[in-house]
Amino acid sequence: MNLDAQILTALRSTPMGISGADLAARLGVTRAAVWARVEDLRRIGYLIEATPHRGYQLVQAPDALHADDLLSRMAGTENIGRSFRVFEETASTNDLVERLARDGAPEGLVVFAESQRQGRGRLGRVWFSPARKGLWFSVLLRPALAPQAITRLTVFAAVAVARAVARVTGLRVDIKWPNDLEVAGRKCCGILTEMNAEPDRVRYAVLGVGLDVNQVAEEWPDALRKTATSLRMAAGRSWDRAELAVEVLRDLDADYRRLQRGVFEEIADEWESACSTLGRDVTIRIGERRVRGRAESLDSDGALLVRTEHGHLERITGGDVEVDKT
Amino acid sequence: MNLDAQILTALRSTPMGISGADLAARLGVTRAAVWARVEDLRRIGYLIEATPHRGYQLVQAPDALHADDLLSRMAGTENIGRSFRVFEETASTNDLVERLARDGAPEGLVVFAESQRQGRGRLGRVWFSPARKGLWFSVLLRPALAPQAITRLTVFAAVAVARAVARVTGLRVDIKWPNDLEVAGRKCCGILTEMNAEPDRVRYAVLGVGLDVNQVAEEWPDALRKTATSLRMAAGRSWDRAELAVEVLRDLDADYRRLQRGVFEEIADEWESACSTLGRDVTIRIGERRVRGRAESLDSDGALLVRTEHGHLERITGGDVEVDKT
Repeated sequence: MNLDAQILTALRSTPMGISGADLAARLGVTRAAVWARVEDLRRIGYLIEATPHRGYQLVQAPDALHADDLLSRMAGTENIGRSFRVFEETASTNDLVERLARDGAPEGLVVFAESQRQGRGRLGRVWFSPARKGLWFSVLLRPALAPQAITRLTVFAAVAVARAVARVTGLRVDIKWPNDLEVAGRKCCGILTEMNAEPDRVRYAVLGVGLDVNQVAEEWPDALRKTATSLRMAAGRSWDRAELAVEVLRDLDADYRRLQRGVFEEIADEWESACSTLGRDVTIRIGERRVRGRAESLDSDGALLVRTEHGHLERITGGDVEVDKT
Repeated sequence: MNLDAQILTALRSTPMGISGADLAARLGVTRAAVWARVEDLRRIGYLIEATPHRGYQLVQAPDALHADDLLSRMAGTENIGRSFRVFEETASTNDLVERLARDGAPEGLVVFAESQRQGRGRLGRVWFSPARKGLWFSVLLRPALAPQAITRLTVFAAVAVARAVARVTGLRVDIKWPNDLEVAGRKCCGILTEMNAEPDRVRYAVLGVGLDVNQVAEEWPDALRKTATSLRMAAGRSWDRAELAVEVLRDLDADYRRLQRGVFEEIADEWESACSTLGRDVTIRIGERRVRGRAESLDSDGALLVRTEHGHLERITGGDVEVDKT
């Protein structure tokens, strides 16, 4: 952790304030060094009060993501969130992470962008990513998985993000197979898994998450207004994005460990109870083909098992799922 | 096709010679332009004679790969070999093609390197790629395949390369599942398939081929001396690499079309008759696990079906296959 991250960690652990001398001693630097870093943190929006009585006190963090700050709040995670990069704007965080992966970046790297010019959804679709309204990020993973099991990554991520969002906001969050989260019947989050693989092993995977946090109704393009929502619209209040990011990443880290330990069944069980697709009649479009039937369960690789009109069980790994109106 | 490629095409189609005036007229340029390009081609090693009697005549091409020349000899192909790049040296042609794929390069692009510093084999192994001794190249494909079916690419490529090499050299070429070609029981070619994919579709695949052509016995590192061979060592003569490249690429193009038309069974049949692994007792190491049994056939996704010691059929998509000594 660099000095900024250490200062923020120390300030968060001393909400009643800490003297400049104590802070400097704790971090093993001079008081002048602490003062200079605090000045810089203030410049980027951290409200840090300094009184002779209480010393330094973190009163408010800015509505901006800050790599050192995120790192300082992720202590104790094992894989995901051991390193961060935050960009003001990029084409696509998934593309960025892929480039970094190729150059040998470590597993668990998380890249945020405050906005994306060409955020991507599944099947080459666009993901609308306006500045500072949501969490647009990608995580680099190097899982010991065969390409056939890659859907497990989408499944574990959906479970983790849904749980964290529900815990922070109190909203009920549904999973729509394979990669969407919904609140009140509208999409608020998409998960895009991409991999670089040989036929028998994944070299690396990039988990992209787009979570709509603080948009209001008027901020959506027309095409999305009827189907999309944000946590703010659903809950009637705005949310601290950095706090939400930390919670989501903590759950991702914990569930990724579960996945690596080989207990995918636990994750699949949790997925099944949060999934709004299961037990419903669905129509799945896969290119030109349509499959109709009842979504029954998830298999051990994360594929959706659908009992078709003709009575046999079909294994669905992709395509567009629509839940039939009843 | 640029002017160099057009000149080489014209010279190849007129082995008895063509006058400067005719050549210029055919290509719609001045005689001076033809003369300048011929001079350049001579400088890079093309032996082009010019006599008042016969005009220009291509006597010999250099033992070097040349993008324009390869292109001029690939007329009529539909996908593979519609564009070429040749590098004197690169780290890995697969890496290069992946970068170009990311930037939107078209399907069918072929990248050769005269030598690779870090040629890669399967499972992260090194592929020894000495300068001008073999064909080290990668092909960009954008197939309409699910990631689950990616092994089909390795299979179709093995069939195509084996057939072309056998035709040109007269050698008997065996396929060893999944990605090696052997002559006289020794490895002479490896095929490395890599993909960039979402869970339900391949965005692009890179087919890497390393074909050992003109090495002699002393040129191998110790570690490979017992298991590797070149076409020269097996046949007792050296081979024109450009000619071999063209033949291999033509077969790759034709078989890729077959794959796209959905007639994988034809390819699988051909694979099965060339495969030295089938019908043999094998031991397969997949990470820490070992599977022993008899290699029975290929399934519709290109996986190897092995009847295990315990009598059930196991589907193998990766790992190291060793044929048991009998």
